[in-house]
Amino acid sequence: MAEENIIYVGKKPVMNYVLAIVTRFNNNNDHITIKARGKAISKAVDIAEITKHKFIKEVKYSKINLSTEVVQGERGESNVSSIEIILSR
Amino acid sequence: MAEENIIYVGKKPVMNYVLAIVTRFNNNNDHITIKARGKAISKAVDIAEITKHKFIKEVKYSKINLSTEVVQGERGESNVSSIEIILSR
Repeated sequence: MAEENIIYVGKKPVMNYVLAIVTRFNNNNDHITIKARGKAISKAVDIAEITKHKFIKEVKYSKINLSTEVVQGERGESNVSSIEIILSR
Repeated sequence: MAEENIIYVGKKPVMNYVLAIVTRFNNNNDHITIKARGKAISKAVDIAEITKHKFIKEVKYSKINLSTEVVQGERGESNVSSIEIILSR
């Protein structure tokens, strides 16, 4: 149930994620979390800002968390930064 | 005076910015702001996380702000997302 309200940012275009968020807010969700790692962090911020300024003006950032995750790659472990932006209205 | 404590993230390597921040903390600054726009936002998060986890463990994120700035380009105005990470200890 909580899991439903997390949007993981990957390689799709920015507007796909924005529309997914707007749809969830319209389905009576009050909190939606955007999560991204590495280079997708910039895209996550774009998604949050576009949602807030162009679609749902009353959205606020209730919490922004930064952290480091350990990822298993072909050459062993590496660290990657991540962001979690919690939108609420 | 306040201006001195802002680090603008651009095209230099991540460690250049990390070392600039560590140096300023060692010069008795208690608050340092990292600012970045567009694709440099991911790098700003890397810089903050590396500073916190590898160099100055007592650093906390006292505030993280996201915003949208209007930039004048060759083809007129465009919007770009920006981040402001305030580190304090």
